[in-house]
Amino acid sequence: MKKTKPEYFLFDVDGVITSGQMLYNQHGKKFKIFGQDDHDSLKLMKKYIYILFISGDKSGFKISKKRVNDMGFDIKFVPSNKRVEWIEKNFDLKKCIYMGDGIFDHLVMKKVLYSIAPNGALEHVKKSANYNTKNYPAKRAVAEAVIHVLKKFFSVDFFDIKNFYNLK
Amino acid sequence: MKKTKPEYFLFDVDGVITSGQMLYNQHGKKFKIFGQDDHDSLKLMKKYIYILFISGDKSGFKISKKRVNDMGFDIKFVPSNKRVEWIEKNFDLKKCIYMGDGIFDHLVMKKVLYSIAPNGALEHVKKSANYNTKNYPAKRAVAEAVIHVLKKFFSVDFFDIKNFYNLK
Amino acid sequence: MKKTKPEYFLFDVDGVITSGQMLYNQHGKKFKIFGQDDHDSLKLMKKYIYILFISGDKSGFKISKKRVNDMGFDIKFVPSNKRVEWIEKNFDLKKCIYMGDGIFDHLVMKKVLYSIAPNGALEHVKKSANYNTKNYPAKRAVAEAVIHVLKKFFSVDFFDIKNFYNLK
Amino acid sequence: MKKTKPEYFLFDVDGVITSGQMLYNQHGKKFKIFGQDDHDSLKLMKKYIYILFISGDKSGFKISKKRVNDMGFDIKFVPSNKRVEWIEKNFDLKKCIYMGDGIFDHLVMKKVLYSIAPNGALEHVKKSANYNTKNYPAKRAVAEAVIHVLKKFFSVDFFDIKNFYNLK
Repeated sequence: MKKTKPEYFLFDVDGVITSGQMLYNQHGKKFKIFGQDDHDSLKLMKKYIYILFISGDKSGFKISKKRVNDMGFDIKFVPSNKRVEWIEKNFDLKKCIYMGDGIFDHLVMKKVLYSIAPNGALEHVKKSANYNTKNYPAKRAVAEAVIHVLKKFFSVDFFDIKNFYNLK
Repeated sequence: MKKTKPEYFLFDVDGVITSGQMLYNQHGKKFKIFGQDDHDSLKLMKKYIYILFISGDKSGFKISKKRVNDMGFDIKFVPSNKRVEWIEKNFDLKKCIYMGDGIFDHLVMKKVLYSIAPNGALEHVKKSANYNTKNYPAKRAVAEAVIHVLKKFFSVDFFDIKNFYNLK
Repeated sequence: MKKTKPEYFLFDVDGVITSGQMLYNQHGKKFKIFGQDDHDSLKLMKKYIYILFISGDKSGFKISKKRVNDMGFDIKFVPSNKRVEWIEKNFDLKKCIYMGDGIFDHLVMKKVLYSIAPNGALEHVKKSANYNTKNYPAKRAVAEAVIHVLKKFFSVDFFDIKNFYNLK
Repeated sequence: MKKTKPEYFLFDVDGVITSGQMLYNQHGKKFKIFGQDDHDSLKLMKKYIYILFISGDKSGFKISKKRVNDMGFDIKFVPSNKRVEWIEKNFDLKKCIYMGDGIFDHLVMKKVLYSIAPNGALEHVKKSANYNTKNYPAKRAVAEAVIHVLKKFFSVDFFDIKNFYNLK
């Protein structure tokens, strides 16, 4: 039944690889909080699928870009109200896995092949996702999503991975 | 029964749009922690009701002001022991929704049309509020409150919103 | 039975008014995380009892001092292994309430009139305290302790407080 | 049965003595979050066993090193995919206790004498560890591990410790 193999794994940034929180001082947004195992799990995932990050946070974009680039991936600025069109234009919606947590992300989730919401997302977002992680963002939600996707779509059991020592 | 439509939505700042926590170094209060979906949900809410932020935090006021202004709203300095009088003088208490979490906010809650406390507030504050959010501040308490108010007072089901693509 | 009225309320700093966490960069400890309602509740408490903060954190002492002074209180440097003697020398142990969360604080708790541990303390510390707060440090543990002590030792029900508007 | 006394206690850094989270600004990783009772508990532990920290985080190594050195211990850079070999070469795997939380740490856990995972680790990591702490990292996971190890391998009941006042 699950004939279609996903080809793209699109990740929202804030609330997915960040905790969703930002530190402000009187001059504005200064820091975001990132977690662990995201980088290590994505290094595995990229052997199986194309990975891209998209963010609608303009004022914090440089922070997000720095982290995403440090992990070796690309990031695009795509406001939340233009995501469906943007994905449609640049990819094939039905070949995309989307992981997001925003208040409007249910609109994207309905269109893609497969969708994942991290714990802590609003109820209507969680209900719209195909898979809800038990873990919270910046607390291994991404690692859990990667392990889940590897198993579901690529029949890879994380414990059997042979290429561990080839990882950079 | 719910004849009176609220006209004003007043938000306390710390512990409502911030996590309630502040980062200090040896020179004082330097950072506050803000969360997500607050901005996106308030952009929707403001089409229905006048929104204002009030804060009693003097030393951290510039930080709060920066964030509130970044979201496109105004903020006033109103100490917690003067809130009831201040609201009474500037608005009509019985047309106000108030969302707050402070140890003295139950005194305000008793006077307004409708009150909301975020999760994590003290017991006597939670009990004094008409609605308690399941979510914690800076972790979507405001977004949940907005969705609740839109439904309760404006018969707007969040899922039916048509003007999504008109959002800035 | 509760004949002895406490005269001193001694607070450990880290893990009581801070979240117990500290932010480090490559040059050392830079920030501590403080919470809300601590200040507002202590302003009430000080009308009934002498309040003092003690901290054994040398490298972060200036940060702790700044916050404690901002709230209008004094702080002393007292290492955890010298607390019992220090309290004995400067106060009367049997007239002290002590709130602490450290791994050795059970040793202090056994000696004072009354002791309080915030949620999140180690099991042996919680068990040694007369009262365990439901709330976590920097998330209203102190406010809860104040409300509890006002009721237990001063027959003050927080809701009946008349002098609210006299607070600074 | 427990004939072999452990001689080395190896600690992963991120997610063990840190909360696992890091603060980024546009220039990169700037802060890590450390917790309490780690230092105090390790001061006790080192009387019984050799303690060493290992970290695979290159860009944040200076931050980790600063904290570990402040506590009076050494730290080595050992990438997660080289840990087993590195431990084997420098120590005796069967004389090591290892505490770690990373996505690949189950591979180390299978080789050492005894392993501990802090709460919040991924399921396959938790299942691979001999002991799971109830506490989260930077929230007393290390202190709990120390108390557990002292009791299990050294028949030391934390409450009976006599040398408390000799601690620095």
